[in-house]
Order: sequence, then C-alpha cells, then structure tokens
Amino acid sequence: MARPRNRSVQRVGMVIGLRDDAVEAYRRLHADDEPGVRDLLRKHHITNFSIFVHRLPDGRLYEFAYFEYDGSDLAGDLAALDAEPRNRAWLARCDPMQVPLPGTTSWSVMESVYHND
Amino acid sequence: MARPRNRSVQRVGMVIGLRDDAVEAYRRLHADDEPGVRDLLRKHHITNFSIFVHRLPDGRLYEFAYFEYDGSDLAGDLAALDAEPRNRAWLARCDPMQVPLPGTTSWSVMESVYHND
Repeated sequence: MARPRNRSVQRVGMVIGLRDDAVEAYRRLHADDEPGVRDLLRKHHITNFSIFVHRLPDGRLYEFAYFEYDGSDLAGDLAALDAEPRNRAWLARCDPMQVPLPGTTSWSVMESVYHND
Repeated sequence: MARPRNRSVQRVGMVIGLRDDAVEAYRRLHADDEPGVRDLLRKHHITNFSIFVHRLPDGRLYEFAYFEYDGSDLAGDLAALDAEPRNRAWLARCDPMQVPLPGTTSWSVMESVYHND
C-alpha cells in the first residue's frame, strides 16, 4: 500500500564499523522490544531510522544507517539530541561496540547519489 | 512534518562496490532529471529508494541502497522487474560500473538489526 510522501524530508545515510565480538550484544540492544532512545529520536525529528549490518571484503563488519529528518534544523536537532543525558548514556553503551572510520569519532555521513519516491 | 507510517512495509538495505573510474558517470546516470527506471521501480512496489556512496578504509568505494517494498510478493516483483526489457538495458549500463562483493553477482542484501518509525 502506498503512503503519502513528503518531498521536503531530508534523507541521511551513515556508516561505521562494528566489532566482531560485539555484534550479538548490539543486536540485543537494538531489538524491537528494547525502548533504547526511540522516543528521543522522534522528539528530535529523526524518523524512519533503520540500521543494517554486513561483512565487507576487508573481512570486517560495517553498520549502515538510514534515517529521515522531518524537522527544520538538522544540525540543531542533532546537537539537542546529543545533549540529552539519556542519549549520552545510550551512546556510552554503543560506542565501545563500534569502530569509527579512520579520522572520525562516530558515524560517517555518506554522499547521497540517488532518490526515487 | 510527520507522515503516516505503514508498519507492513518491508525495508531492504543492500551493498555493492563502485569502480573509482565510474563514480562520475554513475552520479550523472542517477541524477534527479534522468528518468532511468524510476517508473518501473514504482510499478513493482519498490518505493522510497535511496543510494549513498562512501569510501571505506580498504580504499574502495561502496554503494549502499535503501528501499521500501510495499507490495505482497517481493521475490515475485523483483523477478518481474528483472524481466522488464528496459530494466535489463538499465542494468547493462550500471553493471560495468559496479563491483559485486566476492561470491556474488549483484547487490548483496544486508541484515536488518534496527528500525524505529
């Protein structure tokens, strides 16, 4: 069933490494029945958020995130989310499981090359 | 602005390599004003399709695709799309630009580990 589209939404794709010894714990932490920071994402207009995992030819696991931002100030909302104590506690659990790309400290934003509604 | 959600939609994430010498041609081919096979994707219930590109620590470019399937038979629709002559012609242009992961011949489907509406 089709759903209405909002052409003003901003689509963001991000990538980060995932430690092999953390993948099970990461899956559990992100399971559907774990509240995590789902409400905080929505509060800051970060919607339709998906994370995928795949092992690439270098033998390492990577995570790919996709979300849609339906607010009017992405940088401002990300900063506000970052300042939420509960989000900081959440990242303190996730960060040790992840391996930021060289020269970065968190998720890397990817270049968008295509979109079709 | 929030939009209605359809919880029955199937979210798919895929990954494939992209040749360094093809990235400019790939960007042009997928620009907003190129019709490509956009209508065929919609015809087969493949919606909200985004592609992102990033260079990973192995020095190679990778593409990450995200789409939502809002039909009732994903395998059947993918096969029907594959049989469309215009889609075959499209893939004949894209395929030489891409580098499937070892042991595969096209996009690799990733494991979904998280979703938040």
